[in-house]
Amino acid sequence: MHITADAKTRAVQTYVAGYAAGDVDAILSIFAEDAVLEDPVGKPAHQGKAALRAFFSVGIEMEAKLHMLGDVRCAGDSAAFVFAVELKFDGAYKRIEVIDVFRFDDVGKVTEMRAYWGPENMKDA
Amino acid sequence: MHITADAKTRAVQTYVAGYAAGDVDAILSIFAEDAVLEDPVGKPAHQGKAALRAFFSVGIEMEAKLHMLGDVRCAGDSAAFVFAVELKFDGAYKRIEVIDVFRFDDVGKVTEMRAYWGPENMKDA
Repeated sequence: MHITADAKTRAVQTYVAGYAAGDVDAILSIFAEDAVLEDPVGKPAHQGKAALRAFFSVGIEMEAKLHMLGDVRCAGDSAAFVFAVELKFDGAYKRIEVIDVFRFDDVGKVTEMRAYWGPENMKDA
Repeated sequence: MHITADAKTRAVQTYVAGYAAGDVDAILSIFAEDAVLEDPVGKPAHQGKAALRAFFSVGIEMEAKLHMLGDVRCAGDSAAFVFAVELKFDGAYKRIEVIDVFRFDDVGKVTEMRAYWGPENMKDA
């Protein structure tokens, strides 16, 4: 049994709000203990909450703020969504329009996050 | 070795143009022989060119036209992109903003297509 589209959408909202607040615990709250994160896809994966904490802490240090672009697409055990992230990269503000895919377990935690973006998608903010 | 971002983007363009032309062979040309398609994610998968031909032929019968929304995001062996599809569904034109993820093999053919959308994303066109 998959969790509802509403529950998936709320998890995405919690994720975005966690960045807005610079609150790594809020971000981590949506993930399962052994979640796997690949950001961007093709780079080495980060697994488990300690690794994810380190990864998201870097994002918060880069002042990453996420702005949703369009609705969350919920399908099966997954949700996909588009957002613009603005962050400080080598001293300059950059903007990337990213597509994220979350996969959820049966209790509504994210077990897999895959972020799709490449250097072609990074613009000056 | 992964194919280039340019080659992935061209495959996506061929896919969109194939729908515009109602040309199922053009659509199929980007896929590997044993490609797996899940559309939407969570529904039974279609595997192999004969199954894909049947699937895409239904889309062409529904007069599906795809309009890209934003750039293709290329990462690792994959590409993700957003498009609006307008199609005739039960006699009425509908519009769905879909997120597709393609995975490519080393010779540049799509081995996996996953389409993320749910009933919440279907609007009147």
